[in-house]
Amino acid sequence: MSKQMHVTRVRASKWEAAEDAVAIEEPLAVRLHGRPFSVIMRTPGADRELAAGFLLAERVLRSADDLGTIEYCTDAEVPDGAERANVVNVTLTDPARADELLAAARRVTTNASCGLCGRQTIESLATDVERIDSPLSIAASMLTQLPERLRRRQRVFDETGGLHAAGLFLPTGELLDIAEDVGRHNAVDKVIGRQLLRDALPLSQSILMVSGRSSFEIVQKAAFAGIPVVAAVSAPSSLAVELADAIGITLAGFVRGEGFNLYTGPARIRTGD
Amino acid sequence: MSKQMHVTRVRASKWEAAEDAVAIEEPLAVRLHGRPFSVIMRTPGADRELAAGFLLAERVLRSADDLGTIEYCTDAEVPDGAERANVVNVTLTDPARADELLAAARRVTTNASCGLCGRQTIESLATDVERIDSPLSIAASMLTQLPERLRRRQRVFDETGGLHAAGLFLPTGELLDIAEDVGRHNAVDKVIGRQLLRDALPLSQSILMVSGRSSFEIVQKAAFAGIPVVAAVSAPSSLAVELADAIGITLAGFVRGEGFNLYTGPARIRTGD
Repeated sequence: MSKQMHVTRVRASKWEAAEDAVAIEEPLAVRLHGRPFSVIMRTPGADRELAAGFLLAERVLRSADDLGTIEYCTDAEVPDGAERANVVNVTLTDPARADELLAAARRVTTNASCGLCGRQTIESLATDVERIDSPLSIAASMLTQLPERLRRRQRVFDETGGLHAAGLFLPTGELLDIAEDVGRHNAVDKVIGRQLLRDALPLSQSILMVSGRSSFEIVQKAAFAGIPVVAAVSAPSSLAVELADAIGITLAGFVRGEGFNLYTGPARIRTGD
Repeated sequence: MSKQMHVTRVRASKWEAAEDAVAIEEPLAVRLHGRPFSVIMRTPGADRELAAGFLLAERVLRSADDLGTIEYCTDAEVPDGAERANVVNVTLTDPARADELLAAARRVTTNASCGLCGRQTIESLATDVERIDSPLSIAASMLTQLPERLRRRQRVFDETGGLHAAGLFLPTGELLDIAEDVGRHNAVDKVIGRQLLRDALPLSQSILMVSGRSSFEIVQKAAFAGIPVVAAVSAPSSLAVELADAIGITLAGFVRGEGFNLYTGPARIRTGD
């Protein structure tokens, strides 16, 4: 997930040639039944999981039942080596849907009109997503330990300082899965995608912890996976809070040290143990 | 750029109801000659600038000459108030190009094929963009001061902890412009877009400083604006370094305290003054 690159270290007026570990970013082409669907700038690794999570968030997949196969491309037109490792081909159990979806993707580009704006976004999304009513209960004292547990497993960050991390935790605080990526959304897609490939959705007993901030998209991805609690080391955006509130997700921010801010869904958090 | 939201502050086993300033995130619909082109999740403010910078990076605009008007939408179909403030309509000086571009946008969605992959990305982009040969010379001691100068002007970050910042600086270290946004790319589009609206491109005497990491897209945006030096508080990705190298941009990372790492283009940096 990282590679050594030449660098000049400048400190005060001293220059020094060195090697530095840099987080790898490369494009992943996602094909649907052999036809180009999207290109994601990502850190290589867990590519099938990334594609699965991405397609869940795009509503191409709604559950593991929709998914046929996800494989690295073996078309003759894609050369061997690095290039082939940057193309995954996805098939759906219903091939006719691929045609519809590729046609719909065309429509989205030119019809992403104001139905998406402001308050309407929240409302239209809230109707597309089932309200999350998981009665999960987690201890505040456990939640505050998650950033450190995530950080301890973030090997590449230590090396490069350049990767976001996302972790899935059980209510006991046990780490279920972690992914790192130059793209914050990709790290989330990878951990959710892996569970989708295991047919483990909805993740009604999981906590999603992200290393950075929480935006609308992060909460939206959690919602599609049925995750009831989203926690972030940094701040949420206003739309992240509003969406979490609308669909019943517990959203915590600034999770660090002994405390955190709880923006929505306090009923799932208990103190005193 | 921020609003007060209800929050529960949890510290050890104490709970406290409070108000917290949260960075605003809302969708901006960008229309081209009245037709939907794209939706950007952004922090409201400098929306015309954001749209201009975004369209430069998308190659819809290549210079100020291509731009007719950018105005908030006044169509009868968009209601007054908050919703109308989330729609901008862009016209090009050559209306026939809008038709071509909307058709091309359709093609991109379904044809973003492997021409974008790996090494080819860099090479195909390097041919699309003019190599940056600005002979700008800047002092290492000035570069190390930029993060603090940016931070001092980052009003909303202090309040919310939730916004990325991008600044344009002159070689003397003078701040030309700053923008803040929940999206790192948006902050860059805003400062570049403002200069495009002033017909000040290429920015061959400017330094772009970003508060976070530098990715492929950040360097690409700088390239399209003709910016010779990109500096970031955090790490670059491998593709950011490779692109900067290919097109002649000086890329500095980990700019903090007394030093920084120089990944490409050391000839523009001088020490000893």
